[in-house]
Amino acid sequence: MLAALVAQGADVVAVSRTRPGPAGRYRHAAFDLLDASRPLDGLFEGGIDTVLHLAWTVEHGAFWTSPENLDWIAASLRLARAANRHGVKRFVGVGTCYEYQWPSDGACCEKTTPLWPTTLYAVAKDATRRVLDEYARQNETAFAWARLFFLYGPDEGPSRLVGSVARRLARAETAELSRGLAVRDFMHVDDVGRALAALAAGGLTGAVNIASGEAVSVADIARKLAAAAGRPDLLRFGALPDRAGEPPRIVADVARLRNELGFRPRYGLDSGLAATLETLQSHGEPGR
Amino acid sequence: MLAALVAQGADVVAVSRTRPGPAGRYRHAAFDLLDASRPLDGLFEGGIDTVLHLAWTVEHGAFWTSPENLDWIAASLRLARAANRHGVKRFVGVGTCYEYQWPSDGACCEKTTPLWPTTLYAVAKDATRRVLDEYARQNETAFAWARLFFLYGPDEGPSRLVGSVARRLARAETAELSRGLAVRDFMHVDDVGRALAALAAGGLTGAVNIASGEAVSVADIARKLAAAAGRPDLLRFGALPDRAGEPPRIVADVARLRNELGFRPRYGLDSGLAATLETLQSHGEPGR
Repeated sequence: MLAALVAQGADVVAVSRTRPGPAGRYRHAAFDLLDASRPLDGLFEGGIDTVLHLAWTVEHGAFWTSPENLDWIAASLRLARAANRHGVKRFVGVGTCYEYQWPSDGACCEKTTPLWPTTLYAVAKDATRRVLDEYARQNETAFAWARLFFLYGPDEGPSRLVGSVARRLARAETAELSRGLAVRDFMHVDDVGRALAALAAGGLTGAVNIASGEAVSVADIARKLAAAAGRPDLLRFGALPDRAGEPPRIVADVARLRNELGFRPRYGLDSGLAATLETLQSHGEPGR
Repeated sequence: MLAALVAQGADVVAVSRTRPGPAGRYRHAAFDLLDASRPLDGLFEGGIDTVLHLAWTVEHGAFWTSPENLDWIAASLRLARAANRHGVKRFVGVGTCYEYQWPSDGACCEKTTPLWPTTLYAVAKDATRRVLDEYARQNETAFAWARLFFLYGPDEGPSRLVGSVARRLARAETAELSRGLAVRDFMHVDDVGRALAALAAGGLTGAVNIASGEAVSVADIARKLAAAAGRPDLLRFGALPDRAGEPPRIVADVARLRNELGFRPRYGLDSGLAATLETLQSHGEPGR
């Protein structure tokens, strides 16, 4: 996302506890948004017109129920108040496909699909959006909410689907899987970053799905990775149990992203998975 | 509410910036919930089983749009986290009839009426409820949400309907009014306090309307006050313009309050308004 923002000519201040990756053509401000005792005003020095707010608790497995979700609501609202005090005209937050009541068939549409968050994480994200949307309306500023679906890429941790299967294939090891029946919407993380940068720069407001719009089963994700590796023999479907209570289908309607924002992803699923595998094969563990 | 809590045998710690009225049979802890730098843990010393959380920004006229609404979400969530850390088993928050999409006919029901908050205040209250409800579900604690409708009583400020009309009648002055067509649900503040105390003590969870269930026009409120004062001649209907954009009807379904909580108000509208007028006539300005 930072690379995409810089590439589109933005003057960027990246705010995080630690510097995000190698230095680039952006400034970095070390700041912990959860520290309510520290004033935010310094972050806006020199004039900021747009805030793109991604920070939240995202520890794999823990974030669904973490009480830190409550702290992140508070931190997000505090950031929005500070942004408004300092004349910020556009605020983009990041939500989740778990805000939707997924239709059993078809895709989640920002304008027509009911919201039905059922985890503390998703409820907290949804509540934050509701408040920031009304706050922006009242202040006559612009507010957009990027609903992320499923992401993959070479930096993905080994406890996640693509990160796990691709690593095993890259090492020519067998990959044990469930039957992989769940259908999801996966987008390469570089495309997600570029879509967020495009959303920050554009004038679109309200909720916007950031996703590929491609419905694909978990099994097919694994098959595509194995095909790219030339080792379909390494997949062991059914070796792991299917996860109980897994939603069968979470797929995005991407009409807003494509037609209203005009965004086009660089990767399709085949090319994105192949690129991910290639990076893992040539560089080994990129960390996380 | 404090009197009602004490009367039902509760051991009460009242938490507020300043002592709420005369000393009673409760302890008082001076605390500003908006001070995020001060730990809340001291409030729970000695063991607290139930939190009844009423604090919010309520400055007449200003609270609808005040950015402090965002701070109160944060303060409420922080309080809920502290309560949970200290083993509190029941948390009761206070919401508003402005969370509802009021039906043009009939009453707002907790179970069937859609929510459609359209002010920052109501959106903030609604968002707080959504998060606290899920947080309690996850923690297996009890959470109830008292939706207040319209209150009146002898301490009501002179910028509000009953406070204004009753004061003028008590001083035998003419009272200028709009046509008073809006239909509302008014409850005497003593009954509201007793209903909140009952909700704190009971096991009911989820949203509960705290209201009379009586649909009455603003004009009829004034007429009842004037009748109690014996001076219907002092009312000047139509002397003030009708307020633009005023919702025509906001009335509560009180089935949950009456049947599930088993609450019975002490006052009907006639007796409550008469008591309010009498207090103002005999004691003059009680302040606020």
